[in-house]
Amino acid sequence: MAPSVIPTSVNPDIQKERDAASFSSEEFAAWWSGGEEKLKFNRDVREYLQKDMDVEEVQQLHNKSHEEIYEASSKWAILAAKKLQRLQKERNPGGNDYWPTLYDNQVMWGLIPGGNPFGVMYVMLVKALQAQCTPEQYEEFGKRIENFEVCGTYAQTELGHGTYLRGLETRADFDQNTDEFVLNTPKISSYKWWPGGLGHSSNHCMLMAQLYIDNKPKGPHMFYVQVRDEESHEPLPGIHIGDIGKKMGFIGVNNGFLGLKNVRIPRTRMLMRHAQVNADGSYVSSPANVLTYFAMVRTRCVIAWNNAVMLAIGATIATRYSAVRRQSPINPKEPEPQIMDHVTQQMKLFPEIATSVAYRLASAHLWNLYRHYLGRHIQRKLHSLSCALKVNCSSDSTIGVERLRLACGGHGYLSSSNMCHVYVNATAACTYEGENTVLLLQIGRFLMKSWRAALSGAPLAPTVMYLAEVQKKPEFGSWTGTWENMVHAMQFAAAKKTALAFKSLSNRLSRGETEETAANHTGIELAQAAELHGRAFVFSSFADEVTGPKAKTRSAALNRVLENLLELYVVKESLNHMANFLRFINLTDTDLTRLQDRLETVLTKLRPDAVAIVDGFDFSDVQLNSTLGSFDGNAYERIFDAAMKNPMNQKSVPKSFHEHLKPFMKSNI
Amino acid sequence: MAPSVIPTSVNPDIQKERDAASFSSEEFAAWWSGGEEKLKFNRDVREYLQKDMDVEEVQQLHNKSHEEIYEASSKWAILAAKKLQRLQKERNPGGNDYWPTLYDNQVMWGLIPGGNPFGVMYVMLVKALQAQCTPEQYEEFGKRIENFEVCGTYAQTELGHGTYLRGLETRADFDQNTDEFVLNTPKISSYKWWPGGLGHSSNHCMLMAQLYIDNKPKGPHMFYVQVRDEESHEPLPGIHIGDIGKKMGFIGVNNGFLGLKNVRIPRTRMLMRHAQVNADGSYVSSPANVLTYFAMVRTRCVIAWNNAVMLAIGATIATRYSAVRRQSPINPKEPEPQIMDHVTQQMKLFPEIATSVAYRLASAHLWNLYRHYLGRHIQRKLHSLSCALKVNCSSDSTIGVERLRLACGGHGYLSSSNMCHVYVNATAACTYEGENTVLLLQIGRFLMKSWRAALSGAPLAPTVMYLAEVQKKPEFGSWTGTWENMVHAMQFAAAKKTALAFKSLSNRLSRGETEETAANHTGIELAQAAELHGRAFVFSSFADEVTGPKAKTRSAALNRVLENLLELYVVKESLNHMANFLRFINLTDTDLTRLQDRLETVLTKLRPDAVAIVDGFDFSDVQLNSTLGSFDGNAYERIFDAAMKNPMNQKSVPKSFHEHLKPFMKSNI
Repeated sequence: MAPSVIPTSVNPDIQKERDAASFSSEEFAAWWSGGEEKLKFNRDVREYLQKDMDVEEVQQLHNKSHEEIYEASSKWAILAAKKLQRLQKERNPGGNDYWPTLYDNQVMWGLIPGGNPFGVMYVMLVKALQAQCTPEQYEEFGKRIENFEVCGTYAQTELGHGTYLRGLETRADFDQNTDEFVLNTPKISSYKWWPGGLGHSSNHCMLMAQLYIDNKPKGPHMFYVQVRDEESHEPLPGIHIGDIGKKMGFIGVNNGFLGLKNVRIPRTRMLMRHAQVNADGSYVSSPANVLTYFAMVRTRCVIAWNNAVMLAIGATIATRYSAVRRQSPINPKEPEPQIMDHVTQQMKLFPEIATSVAYRLASAHLWNLYRHYLGRHIQRKLHSLSCALKVNCSSDSTIGVERLRLACGGHGYLSSSNMCHVYVNATAACTYEGENTVLLLQIGRFLMKSWRAALSGAPLAPTVMYLAEVQKKPEFGSWTGTWENMVHAMQFAAAKKTALAFKSLSNRLSRGETEETAANHTGIELAQAAELHGRAFVFSSFADEVTGPKAKTRSAALNRVLENLLELYVVKESLNHMANFLRFINLTDTDLTRLQDRLETVLTKLRPDAVAIVDGFDFSDVQLNSTLGSFDGNAYERIFDAAMKNPMNQKSVPKSFHEHLKPFMKSNI
Repeated sequence: MAPSVIPTSVNPDIQKERDAASFSSEEFAAWWSGGEEKLKFNRDVREYLQKDMDVEEVQQLHNKSHEEIYEASSKWAILAAKKLQRLQKERNPGGNDYWPTLYDNQVMWGLIPGGNPFGVMYVMLVKALQAQCTPEQYEEFGKRIENFEVCGTYAQTELGHGTYLRGLETRADFDQNTDEFVLNTPKISSYKWWPGGLGHSSNHCMLMAQLYIDNKPKGPHMFYVQVRDEESHEPLPGIHIGDIGKKMGFIGVNNGFLGLKNVRIPRTRMLMRHAQVNADGSYVSSPANVLTYFAMVRTRCVIAWNNAVMLAIGATIATRYSAVRRQSPINPKEPEPQIMDHVTQQMKLFPEIATSVAYRLASAHLWNLYRHYLGRHIQRKLHSLSCALKVNCSSDSTIGVERLRLACGGHGYLSSSNMCHVYVNATAACTYEGENTVLLLQIGRFLMKSWRAALSGAPLAPTVMYLAEVQKKPEFGSWTGTWENMVHAMQFAAAKKTALAFKSLSNRLSRGETEETAANHTGIELAQAAELHGRAFVFSSFADEVTGPKAKTRSAALNRVLENLLELYVVKESLNHMANFLRFINLTDTDLTRLQDRLETVLTKLRPDAVAIVDGFDFSDVQLNSTLGSFDGNAYERIFDAAMKNPMNQKSVPKSFHEHLKPFMKSNI
């Protein structure tokens, strides 16, 4: 193997960018991370976790087979767990602020690039057991999961059913004679399908199944089931378990299937915090409590947050690469410029930086709002907003990452750029935890209820108060183009779209359609209204952060950068949704020309600061895992180095040459 | 291994769709394929090629390592070549209508799902040699490539340069003493990077290098270079060659790198058809001829055509799956419907079907137009349109395939769905053969020239005649909403966008910017105008095919289906570009409501015919290679079957359990 060609110095083109920035990327990083303390803590933990990694093995992961990727992911996941345990012992023995708290934290990103097969265990299972077990149950088996004495996952989705829980087919029949439940997946479509880590990484699982007592259905309930022997790891009798096969991403996560054939578990393995089956077969249930909403809102804020960060990763890689690649002279007599000097390239990069910041702020804002109203009725109403945020952020970040990948040209198509892996992680969020269209339709129905409530003068949640305002004052007034005016415009457009959907729905109802059929037929308009409802919130969150009282805690230089990002965000979003604006708001041709001017002006303003902004996102090279996006900007040398280390290049002549190619060519002479 | 669970019968839900269709999918297939003869021929060849395939090995390909995927692809590519040779001998000995003509034809799709490492050889290299060699040269080494006695590729792109050919760094210095060229890649960034099949599948290549005579640059020229020994396949002295590593897609294609260090080739290995270096060092060049345009227009029409077909593959898979998956009752008392009954699902599927048909027709139309004007000056002007078609089709088909994948929910994320492989193939076309943004800017500059020409009354190509018309009559007139009116609206919007860009450009020029700087600063508007220029052509091509004289050759039933597809296409595209329409054309709120009604109405009309339409695209199961999209509709059983055959499931306990997981869990007790 050739010696490394990667210089130890920083590429001068990227250094020049850093030297000329108008603000401190360190101040940005502290702001972005939630304070200097937090930034220092993150960096410190990251360094500890990353210091003795086999970076080369990680970089070559994508060349391996599915099975090898699983084995490596499993090894790395355990290694990371051990490190966090060690850190916990060293820094705060007996606490849990390092282990297991950080196991699903962003500081882990990059350590297990194929995905963590034990991720679901801490992200969902422990929390779900805490919410669903009685205290005795949690003591008996919940704790063992929490301590990682055994490993488990959460098995809900089936081959034939995801979204519609009532359609799940896995059965748990109570057998009063033996005081047991008998578990079955009667058909192929009833097999559990998708749970992360279920394939070969779990010996227990939390199972959702239709409870039957005397063959009478009681709806979906939770059970705790052992699936593999704790010593040999062999599947237990009646258990058919394995990996569902390769996916676009999360290859190491070991998503699994589970078939059950007359598997018997004690009655006490039903999770009985909210519903109970007694030994005599009597059944008691309690209604879902506010905790469910809490978990759902939290999960969706976390998804939006994470996807915003994935977009920031994509933006970091593409922006740094655009600073070091030079291509195509703008003026024929000048040398080839950094590609970031092409305005169309700026238009691919900077709006995504702004979008990432916008969603990061919106998810933090919503989460704070949620905690502010903790335990109050209003939480249910915030639930819709968290869904809208999840939908818009997963969708926009996916499109954004892909735009950024395309901005890297051919080299963005290389696995070593990591852009495609960021993409497949980002896009998965469009489907999991509530498929985006299903969520949009739910939000749409909530908007219909709110619109109706507003018409009757009933009180509204603060998140939909703008609907009542538009009912009272159905004209927009003047377009002035201030940020405040543009925030108002997005809310106004959202309200008007809601009104249109409401009108279509009402027409259908008055023609005799049922509420449900009418809602299906109005689906396109409901989804559009729901999308704008979410966007209006992102607009106002961003404007609040930049123009509100927090500005005083930041330097003038940082505020100028954030103002530029806000300006870019609201201008490009307004242009993207101009069809809606023009339908409801009176904008002149001059107003539109002015918006285009503002767009081009703010791109120019952001140009000198772009590298410093993405530096402020503060990703380590391990987290970026990209030949194009490393801090030192030595993109070509890193692409070259990664290619040389590719296993295919460790021998000069492939097997197929002698077996197939040469005999064929000889036969053609 | 368990016996296959796949029924031999067709899923009743999909059979019901076929039985109820309003037209013959066979008639559609004949129309789509270019006639009954062509359809029969395609099916016949396909059957021959596919009959003894190891389908199971193909289906499990994605689980293999990068190297294994290459070896399999290489084997299958040779196997397919042999089959075509056999077919040629059997059916038309001495001809070339089967071999090599069909080697890059659509009938091959699915045979080498990782991509053909010898694809570039016939798609580009043979044609390029024919265009660039003198007759003697072609006889000497071109023929050997054509006969596959040796194998080669076309090496142009470098690590540091793609788009900008004049920036290429590979040097060919003429050495008069030895009558040789000395080839060098002086820097890492000068390495050839990306050529398909260059890594381990070629022993010769056509190399683009900067010609130097007496150290004076003569610009990029073509050379023919042997890179590996024909017997041992070992790289020749001075040659550093290998695979560039894993990519998002085309994993088996063996894209390679090539470094050259003082590699000497005879002077006669420069391709001398258009430029010559004589033994005395004198240099003669001739200008590029019309053949270059011919090749470029052809390549771009082929890309648009192929991407339209990829979109049709995605639409076939997603539509069939949407007919067999049942989920979420619309009315609570009814059973779960086929998901295709949800209107929002129809909105994901049917527009993509229509888009696929639209681009297929537009690329055929443009190609016919091009051949009609063969050899005339106008061909250069059609070049812009072919670029616009390539850009819009690659971009729309990519977005469309992804939308269709998301429409398959979680299972669309499985590799076995094949949706992700269709996606990565489709998106690559946004970058290769002219990066999309670079092309849009070229088209934009062509539009500026045309606008200026129109202003001065100079004659215009028929493809931009509408610019002059809008200059003469700058008001749209009335929106009537007929197809003709909507085609006109798209042309009008394209012309108005061109006018806006022209105004911005002129303002910048009058402020003293150079033509090039001004073009860079106007880049966003130029690209927008270029995009609409392409869209207007697709609109008119589609309308011409459906409403023109060809309608008489089709049954009334098929014409109704095509009319519905046209209606959906123009309505959804008009809604997508409504911001531009509303800026330039006076549409009332009633007009907009009417468009939404038309959208929903035509979705309903297409619903009963959707499965029959995608059947009419006439893909074989091997071509689709999808557990979700097979003709029999047994999606769940095929997902299940593919998972069972996954190599990870051939043993019950993974290695990492004993090595890492178990010791760790024990340590936590």
